[in-house]
Amino acid sequence: MNKNSLEVNGGRLWDTLEASGEIGKLRGTGLRRLPLSDADKQMRDIFCDWARKAGCEVAVDQVGNIFARRPGSDDSLPAIATGSHLDTQMCGGKYDGVLGVMSGLEVIRTLNDLGLETKRPIELVVWSNEEGARYTPPMQGSLAFVGDLSLETVLSSEDADGLRFGDELRRIGYDGARPLGESKFEAYLELHIEQGPTLDRTGIDTGIVVSGFKSHGLRIQVTGNTAHVGPTPMDERQNALVGAAHLITAVDAIGWQHHPEGGKSTTPFISCFPNLPGIIPETAQLTVDFRHPEPEMADQMLAEVKAAMDAAAAKANVEMAIIDSWTFGDNPFSDICLKALEDTADTMGISYMEIRSQAGHDAYAIGKVAPMGMIFTPCTGGVSHNVEESIELDKTLNGVNLLLNTMVNMANR
Amino acid sequence: MNKNSLEVNGGRLWDTLEASGEIGKLRGTGLRRLPLSDADKQMRDIFCDWARKAGCEVAVDQVGNIFARRPGSDDSLPAIATGSHLDTQMCGGKYDGVLGVMSGLEVIRTLNDLGLETKRPIELVVWSNEEGARYTPPMQGSLAFVGDLSLETVLSSEDADGLRFGDELRRIGYDGARPLGESKFEAYLELHIEQGPTLDRTGIDTGIVVSGFKSHGLRIQVTGNTAHVGPTPMDERQNALVGAAHLITAVDAIGWQHHPEGGKSTTPFISCFPNLPGIIPETAQLTVDFRHPEPEMADQMLAEVKAAMDAAAAKANVEMAIIDSWTFGDNPFSDICLKALEDTADTMGISYMEIRSQAGHDAYAIGKVAPMGMIFTPCTGGVSHNVEESIELDKTLNGVNLLLNTMVNMANR
Repeated sequence: MNKNSLEVNGGRLWDTLEASGEIGKLRGTGLRRLPLSDADKQMRDIFCDWARKAGCEVAVDQVGNIFARRPGSDDSLPAIATGSHLDTQMCGGKYDGVLGVMSGLEVIRTLNDLGLETKRPIELVVWSNEEGARYTPPMQGSLAFVGDLSLETVLSSEDADGLRFGDELRRIGYDGARPLGESKFEAYLELHIEQGPTLDRTGIDTGIVVSGFKSHGLRIQVTGNTAHVGPTPMDERQNALVGAAHLITAVDAIGWQHHPEGGKSTTPFISCFPNLPGIIPETAQLTVDFRHPEPEMADQMLAEVKAAMDAAAAKANVEMAIIDSWTFGDNPFSDICLKALEDTADTMGISYMEIRSQAGHDAYAIGKVAPMGMIFTPCTGGVSHNVEESIELDKTLNGVNLLLNTMVNMANR
Repeated sequence: MNKNSLEVNGGRLWDTLEASGEIGKLRGTGLRRLPLSDADKQMRDIFCDWARKAGCEVAVDQVGNIFARRPGSDDSLPAIATGSHLDTQMCGGKYDGVLGVMSGLEVIRTLNDLGLETKRPIELVVWSNEEGARYTPPMQGSLAFVGDLSLETVLSSEDADGLRFGDELRRIGYDGARPLGESKFEAYLELHIEQGPTLDRTGIDTGIVVSGFKSHGLRIQVTGNTAHVGPTPMDERQNALVGAAHLITAVDAIGWQHHPEGGKSTTPFISCFPNLPGIIPETAQLTVDFRHPEPEMADQMLAEVKAAMDAAAAKANVEMAIIDSWTFGDNPFSDICLKALEDTADTMGISYMEIRSQAGHDAYAIGKVAPMGMIFTPCTGGVSHNVEESIELDKTLNGVNLLLNTMVNMANR
């Protein structure tokens, strides 16, 4: 790396990640730190303490997003921001989201070590509920920040036990006063593990994200009729679960068909009612997710899934309807940030590759209100959303240093 | 009907059924009266009151089975028993089980009206948790009575909220003192709606059950691995839900293949973990149920399901294992009871047909400790386990009168 480039303290970053990895520990190597849980509160408290000790002002907004701000020499200017999330999946790893937050903290700590003041303020954000493992949709905090979800919608969402987001937020003491969307960003840069195998396999440690995979999500209701499993003849049944199963296998086949070009499709969620011995299922619900690097092919997959719904419904003599749908990842990335990241990487003399993001990220929503870019770092074997998720510090540091130097460059413009 | 035959009071029976149909009412026409719920307690309290007013001694055993006994002139002899259940499915009807209990009560009331004493006592039993809609397995009360389930197993079983059977039984005041299996029966006759379309379609109102359908049940565990739905390529997935879906469609196809001879197969239950947006399912569990009129064909279906498990596991790159299994309905019916029912019907001059039972019933278990027989009455369209379940009194009365006359005949032997 060019000797004029700034460098973070890798050992300190690692210690910070390890400390975070103790809070909500699961199955030895992983984390279950669901949003607004006791573990989330504990992690938030420690993060706020760390941020204040690093000289930041800390504010919390009405959905619990945390904003830690390092003042600039012209503090009236919009900040250069970074951030990610501290909540995890049900059986998640220690780095998904967490690395981005702790890298942002390490940027601020390094600037303090070096006594460097920036013209614009630096702002580090922890977004509420990125994963959607307890409250849906995922990326609730960033979507609310940019106005894509209303405050009321977020606060009234319920978990599987019927506990309201607003009540749980108050319980853990993160029902902040700051109105949504108050922070203004000159640019937003998010560092994240890739969650895919490309960097790990190519041996290039730093990815600069150029676009997302267009992703469609559908919630599908299957309606049949219940009856006794014993005496009801096969030809008089309207078995909702059989309809759902035909659709699940068809969705999987659609993913395989688009696999050569990088397409994927998944049914990550099913519910079935009454779901009891002796009864033919009356209704089922599925969530279907499909993604493709070419937006028009993602739209074609949507048409194929709709046709598969009709075929599956006919096979099982049931009805199927789309009751909710969403789309994300449709090119929210900014040329301004891409150029700043690539110019900085070139100046630093680090190797990088342009890469596409296949997962959802808070950055996508922020792209609506500010120029946005992302840096990816490798995770072993591309594994994430799994307690086996792991990273190597050596392969991560170039990306973190790229974040540091790019933020400083942009903050001094 | 032969004028020397005894006749129940149909209007009173209907009023009793209607009164029961108010307790735990669901969707206007149905019932949700889950075992050991408040509705179950209310129904049990009213039943005990009715039984005592009809001159019965009432006792409750350690799993909450209720025994209402009308003494005989030689009270040392084993009783002629009848019974059924008062619990229902999650979205059940007003007659499944309830009709058998209320018909037994009507038998006792009619004997009182007529001032008829029988040599042997008459015993009416309400079995705990026949349906299995809250605690599994189904038919828990009768299985425990005959020793096929231990007291400890029943009391420690938990519902979906982790509430223990034993605690809930105590809460509703039906943790009786009577040891399991204390009552001795000379014979046990159970009247039940058919829960299938045969009687309704043939127009013959009374079925005398000659045998059951052999039924196999399997609990199957599907084990894959979790990962992110976005970046994980299709060919690196071990999606447990896709494996489960392949098995569900294969199980359905096996049922269709045996449909011409009356075979059926169903997957009434599925669970999926973590079952969250963004995650490839790590594990799934299925309950598979299949039944065939020929026992050896039911065994062949079992072999076919096992082969389908292997094929589905290979398709989805997951593992599948049978973690629990059960079998019932393998000819528990007694020639003694069959002859008594048919002789009585002939004497009464009512038309009947021999019929097979396709559902599970408490009577099956009791067949292990006493001669056992069953009477079926029609339900409209064969629909049951559904709030639309309905019966007609006119088409039901021959069956109830057959129960009355056969019990009296057997009780005076």
